[in-house]
Amino acid sequence: MGAEIVAIGNELLLGETVDTNSAHVARCLGRIGVRVRRTTVVGDDRERLRAVLEEVCDRSRLVITMGGLGPTHDDITREVVAEVFDRRLLLDERLLSALKERFRRFGYEMPPANRSQAEIPEGARVIPNPHGTAPGLIIDDERTTVYVLPGVPVEMKALLDDAVLPEILAATDQQQPVIQSRVVRTVGIGESALAEELADLVAEAAPLEVAFLPHLGRVDVRVTAAGLPTAEAETRLAELTSAIADRAGRWYYGEDETTLSDAILEQLRDRGWTVAVAESCTGGGLGAALTEAPGSSDVFLGGIVAYSNNVKTSALGVSPMLLEEHGAVSEAVCRSMAAAIRERFGAAVGCAITGIAGPGGGTPEKPVGLVYCGVETPLDSKIRRLDYPGTRDAVRERATLSTMGLLLSMTRAENRSAEGAT
Amino acid sequence: MGAEIVAIGNELLLGETVDTNSAHVARCLGRIGVRVRRTTVVGDDRERLRAVLEEVCDRSRLVITMGGLGPTHDDITREVVAEVFDRRLLLDERLLSALKERFRRFGYEMPPANRSQAEIPEGARVIPNPHGTAPGLIIDDERTTVYVLPGVPVEMKALLDDAVLPEILAATDQQQPVIQSRVVRTVGIGESALAEELADLVAEAAPLEVAFLPHLGRVDVRVTAAGLPTAEAETRLAELTSAIADRAGRWYYGEDETTLSDAILEQLRDRGWTVAVAESCTGGGLGAALTEAPGSSDVFLGGIVAYSNNVKTSALGVSPMLLEEHGAVSEAVCRSMAAAIRERFGAAVGCAITGIAGPGGGTPEKPVGLVYCGVETPLDSKIRRLDYPGTRDAVRERATLSTMGLLLSMTRAENRSAEGAT
Repeated sequence: MGAEIVAIGNELLLGETVDTNSAHVARCLGRIGVRVRRTTVVGDDRERLRAVLEEVCDRSRLVITMGGLGPTHDDITREVVAEVFDRRLLLDERLLSALKERFRRFGYEMPPANRSQAEIPEGARVIPNPHGTAPGLIIDDERTTVYVLPGVPVEMKALLDDAVLPEILAATDQQQPVIQSRVVRTVGIGESALAEELADLVAEAAPLEVAFLPHLGRVDVRVTAAGLPTAEAETRLAELTSAIADRAGRWYYGEDETTLSDAILEQLRDRGWTVAVAESCTGGGLGAALTEAPGSSDVFLGGIVAYSNNVKTSALGVSPMLLEEHGAVSEAVCRSMAAAIRERFGAAVGCAITGIAGPGGGTPEKPVGLVYCGVETPLDSKIRRLDYPGTRDAVRERATLSTMGLLLSMTRAENRSAEGAT
Repeated sequence: MGAEIVAIGNELLLGETVDTNSAHVARCLGRIGVRVRRTTVVGDDRERLRAVLEEVCDRSRLVITMGGLGPTHDDITREVVAEVFDRRLLLDERLLSALKERFRRFGYEMPPANRSQAEIPEGARVIPNPHGTAPGLIIDDERTTVYVLPGVPVEMKALLDDAVLPEILAATDQQQPVIQSRVVRTVGIGESALAEELADLVAEAAPLEVAFLPHLGRVDVRVTAAGLPTAEAETRLAELTSAIADRAGRWYYGEDETTLSDAILEQLRDRGWTVAVAESCTGGGLGAALTEAPGSSDVFLGGIVAYSNNVKTSALGVSPMLLEEHGAVSEAVCRSMAAAIRERFGAAVGCAITGIAGPGGGTPEKPVGLVYCGVETPLDSKIRRLDYPGTRDAVRERATLSTMGLLLSMTRAENRSAEGAT
């Protein structure tokens, strides 16, 4: 089944906001065997939106629109969809009460403008939106089904997961060969080095396709099966992803939806270890990343953000002499930070980051982008020196990921040798 | 003049890569007075690409395509463009020598596959590509002009700046008005409430256009001038953004590229205040957000991530009795955290967050999404209670933004009253 995506909003068309929603929807549809044929971005212009919607409804049996469902004057999607399907807009009393109730819960009277969000095209079905005021809509006729979603990413994603994907999946003929993908995730190795490691697996992958998807600090390997019977696709995918995971070895951290945070927490939990962090240039980003996964409180105790040198000495206990002698951005201070947080918080594992995120603060000896990442476990202590140029954001993100990679490998390597020893 | 953008590539259509090129091109075109009417993303499929190109050439006098100019089998843009314009592909000998020379410079023989990159449609002009092997093309007929650019962002941007924008600008009547936009940023007020506050300004905005762009926890207001002489556009934009900023009052934090972190750091700097943070459910996200802006070390001292209750008492000094009596997620504990971090770190201002990010850990009395945000300054202390449902990520982000909004307003309000007092 082919689908089209329509992203609606002047901010997207004029380039003020990058349209990340369409990529998300396309990935999700791909996973359930629906291939996107075309994506169109159009502004908040009644005539042009109408033209686009008429074209896509003529061309495709499945359409997903995003955006233009807000309460303000330039939110026209509801009205234009109703026009294209030649339906009246009717006030949905239940929706209106739910909206009023939502505002009441937050202690407000519903503004009159929000009333329009309870108006839906005759015959359309409502997808409740627990995260916002704009409900989604499903409207169809003999040609096509249109899923009308809000543009705010968190709301769009929730409605997609809760209602749209399950319905499309149920409507898909399960016998039909679908596109299935698996993703093997790695951290700490570059794209071309990983491609070289996997060269023979990639060369012999057919009928599967392998693609390398580089991100800042980590690389995903996507394996896709298209046009194979479901059972065969699943077997082949399982075999190849497992071979890739083995080959990726210490850089491998998980598959599909597994995050680096998930992988680390699982290893720590297995090991019975707790962790605490001491951060400087990342300002709390490492702690935030480690606690992205639910249930992180099992193993994550907390941390100290030692941004100023004063805090490094007073709260964390790094020796002023060490700071004086080596400077805050140094292997010695990083090592001391990891040891100190471990001891202060009574954690099994201490992690530390100190670096120069820039754009200011660099010197010839210690340029912007110089970062030390350290991990101390009950068994071992390692410091990694990074020296990448890049924007402030990129340096901070890379420092966080690199420390997480180090943490994972030291936790896992020790798990393995511990297993070997028993 | 209206334009269309066509982004070509399976990786874009399937969502493996987010299309950031189109937004860049749209912004650049907007600056020279060209409005994008529609953006289409299409895959490496000959038939579908041909259909898209025929439609856009029929519809628009100016088209920019990106992608599909590489040397591999799925790079088909050159051929399909030649078909659509009914031209033959001819080998450009000069281009071929330049390509061979490029490879020689890097110490390689040119691979045979790259020969196709020297084939151009009859009558097309070549845009040399100093950053890669795929040259750009300009092809036109009586209907339309198509600029054919490579998809690699750094190459696309260089060709756009060097050749495409200057040519379009030269072709544009310089007397003709351009599109200019300004953005007013707000935090702490919902989209519809803000729209209501600004209703009369929006109603009288013409010939300017006003749009509300909601994000999680904050709303931007974009004001656009299209079809006005430059000087008049600037004056009108300045007047209206200033009126909107005034009206948005305590929710306003800046314009255009200003981030919330920028705005807060500037207020703190003006005030001569330092800040430290105590975080629980956000895991370090507040510190990370406050240090996004360069130069944050002027005022940001650091923080304690007190994820476990043990850390709340031992490192931060929250009384165990308080925790026992009220629970970790309570107004009393939040207040105590803000006071404690302020005192421990010797900061002028202490911020605190404690909440239940979920998905687990909620109870009927304290459901997932319940968060207390607190700020204590030398003059005042305020706690805000949030109670939003939502995903773990959304709860954490909202908690961070809400605390930043509170911090900004308390720093600014006090600045104002201090000014009033002198």
